[in-house]
Amino acid sequence: MRQVYAQRREKLRQVMAGAGLSALLVLLDANRYYLSGFELHDVQVDESAGCLLIRTNGEDWLFTDSRYLDTARRLWDQSRISIYPSLAAVPEHLNKFCKHHAVGCLGFETKLMPLAFYKRFQPGLRLAAGDGLVEKLRIIKDEDEIRRLEDSARLNHALMDWVPGVLRPGRTEAEVAWDIERFFRERGATENAFAPIVAVGPNAALPHAIPGETPITENCPVLIDVGARLHDYNSDQTRTFWVGDKPSSEFTRTMAQVREAQEKAIAGIKPGVPCSEVYALARNCLDEQGVGEFFTHGLGHGVGLQTHEAPSLGPRSTQILAAGMIVTVEPGLYYPKWGGIRWEYMVLVTADGCRAL
Amino acid sequence: MRQVYAQRREKLRQVMAGAGLSALLVLLDANRYYLSGFELHDVQVDESAGCLLIRTNGEDWLFTDSRYLDTARRLWDQSRISIYPSLAAVPEHLNKFCKHHAVGCLGFETKLMPLAFYKRFQPGLRLAAGDGLVEKLRIIKDEDEIRRLEDSARLNHALMDWVPGVLRPGRTEAEVAWDIERFFRERGATENAFAPIVAVGPNAALPHAIPGETPITENCPVLIDVGARLHDYNSDQTRTFWVGDKPSSEFTRTMAQVREAQEKAIAGIKPGVPCSEVYALARNCLDEQGVGEFFTHGLGHGVGLQTHEAPSLGPRSTQILAAGMIVTVEPGLYYPKWGGIRWEYMVLVTADGCRAL
Repeated sequence: MRQVYAQRREKLRQVMAGAGLSALLVLLDANRYYLSGFELHDVQVDESAGCLLIRTNGEDWLFTDSRYLDTARRLWDQSRISIYPSLAAVPEHLNKFCKHHAVGCLGFETKLMPLAFYKRFQPGLRLAAGDGLVEKLRIIKDEDEIRRLEDSARLNHALMDWVPGVLRPGRTEAEVAWDIERFFRERGATENAFAPIVAVGPNAALPHAIPGETPITENCPVLIDVGARLHDYNSDQTRTFWVGDKPSSEFTRTMAQVREAQEKAIAGIKPGVPCSEVYALARNCLDEQGVGEFFTHGLGHGVGLQTHEAPSLGPRSTQILAAGMIVTVEPGLYYPKWGGIRWEYMVLVTADGCRAL
Repeated sequence: MRQVYAQRREKLRQVMAGAGLSALLVLLDANRYYLSGFELHDVQVDESAGCLLIRTNGEDWLFTDSRYLDTARRLWDQSRISIYPSLAAVPEHLNKFCKHHAVGCLGFETKLMPLAFYKRFQPGLRLAAGDGLVEKLRIIKDEDEIRRLEDSARLNHALMDWVPGVLRPGRTEAEVAWDIERFFRERGATENAFAPIVAVGPNAALPHAIPGETPITENCPVLIDVGARLHDYNSDQTRTFWVGDKPSSEFTRTMAQVREAQEKAIAGIKPGVPCSEVYALARNCLDEQGVGEFFTHGLGHGVGLQTHEAPSLGPRSTQILAAGMIVTVEPGLYYPKWGGIRWEYMVLVTADGCRAL
């Protein structure tokens, strides 16, 4: 894998040069990992495991603290690891380093660097916004990433095949959520891709429902939106099940509407199509059926090392689909009175169209 | 609980007034939750569930997006919820709001607000650094929080009583880590407090070890540093076990040194004592035994809604102990050749001393 990371950094250098940068400071954990294999996760929002300095001259550096030195050495040229004494000292440490090494025009993630960090980091440096440059590479998945995402999606399919068996009246949302997590973890997943959603009845109308003590009843909808990280890559799928043998007429009608919108959207996915147009395909389909107003969120998002990443399939998205992107397609309709339905696939954009993973 | 949150906001107003602020924008998820009960977790680093505006005039606002509206209404005065159209629009939304409501001198978390956010948020506002103001309250746990942390610590003790039974030769670090997580979750915990450490043999010498495929062998040390979130509050404890009936002489000697250092440090914990002095008690004890250089990290940290929070028990800490603080005390000694030992308690500072939870 060390070679894969090195190749990604080579590609990044081209993007950087195009943006007029001679160096890029990489803070985001997923970006750091993508370029180095070093630490996929930071411990908590204010505790970084380290950062990278990528330079167009090929002299790339990894900054971390002594706790991570052993791990860093396994992944990175020892002579290019710089150890800072403490997290508090990072901005000044980087400032001094960049001046000493005359890095030139240095890009950084302005959407991530805290103001207090910036104030101590920037004196005397020539800086420029470097947001989205690594994401520009990450948005197109390479063959190895596609394989990992397929594995991850396959585990998610297995879960969705299995889960109806544990949707029994009397069991609570929280119990089912834990069943699901165990299923994933016992099959190799390292964590949930995101906080799992198991929503019974009217709770299914909340796009962001936390599994609670609501029990499944005979004849009710259960919305399940879950994913897991397998081989570092996240899956994300939603299904809505009916528990019992008599789906209500609202449920049956809404399901047909949602599935039709999803089908229309997927049929429109191919390289060159604006993401906002794919959203519009689903939205228009629901509008024509008179229910567009109950589709209250975007159609989907990229998925990979992060569960939510570029591109966005929303009405205001300015991105264009390209081969190698993997996006979720997840239309939904929500009715506070009885619940809601969402159905979600992960879809790979191919050279001439797409296929659901 | 709504009343508890309101009381905390009243206390915060006094702190704010003392800092010359008429309003405070609260971005950090744990701070937001502490003051409102709204959403303990943000989905990922760049996806906030919302933020709070606390004002000295008592007019407090919750900002979120429409997905969270239902949850927000259950916790917050409906007439003081402001819905922004998208995450991208938050800075301008807040700017306009603050101007319209003439909030006066507005504090914000400079260690958290990204530069790009700040640039769009600040035009025309009177701003000041408001870092650490909520943390100033959070550092002293109230009775309810102490109860929750005691519950959480009790579950951790139960784990440490139980875990030797699963430390059998042949089992891997990763298997044991999953046993531990299941133990916690099946007893009410909602998640790991942090990435669990299960480190066999020489891996125990890495203060930051990720559980892997290393198997336990007959007669080896196993370091276990784990915690779980129960009733919203985190526990954090470390034990180092010997698997087999013949602890090595290094293990026995090192264990005695670590435990003595811990004892000395705990004996010095009481209100009024500088945190750096508590560190020094442990450090000096190890120095006197000639092994101080192998104690390579701080002595401990506050624990609560976050696993790592104020105060820090490190050599450069400037904080002073006060009744109601809860800190970890976790000296360790590390030897790459055979492993290492760390032992960790959670300790509550009481009116006249302390007690281990």
